[in-house]
Amino acid sequence: MEILKVSSSSRPTSVAGAIAGVVREQGIVEVQAVGAGAANQAIKSVAVARGYLAPAGVDLICTPGFTEIEIDGQERTAVRLIVEPR
Amino acid sequence: MEILKVSSSSRPTSVAGAIAGVVREQGIVEVQAVGAGAANQAIKSVAVARGYLAPAGVDLICTPGFTEIEIDGQERTAVRLIVEPR
Repeated sequence: MEILKVSSSSRPTSVAGAIAGVVREQGIVEVQAVGAGAANQAIKSVAVARGYLAPAGVDLICTPGFTEIEIDGQERTAVRLIVEPR
Repeated sequence: MEILKVSSSSRPTSVAGAIAGVVREQGIVEVQAVGAGAANQAIKSVAVARGYLAPAGVDLICTPGFTEIEIDGQERTAVRLIVEPR
């Protein structure tokens, strides 16, 4: 599954465009965020992507979870959102 | 629909318990958060609630969106997550 990594400085409209594109092509995408600012941008991005896909009759939902990732040799917990049509 | 308001100091396990309780009783719940810290706790709470309800065969999903709320007479944009079984 393709992974979109979101940071606190990511623009929700840009990430939303990427989410919509991957969902259109592959049917599902994982959005990954480390830290509160990044998680906030991630969830806003999914909300915006819903608006992008709604006119095509796609009702986007997300399934939140956690995943362990390594950053600079350190274990960090990322929030991950699996995004797909309902 | 019942609304659970989450702040940046909310404990995800407590909010998750409330989400699971309302979903069990009413089938759906809205989780509302203003600001990055609150949105982060909200999404983590849904992830934890998924774990609480999974043993009962409930696959919890969420639908993110925005809503305008008034705080101290000022208009603020809140992130809202509609949480329900798939």
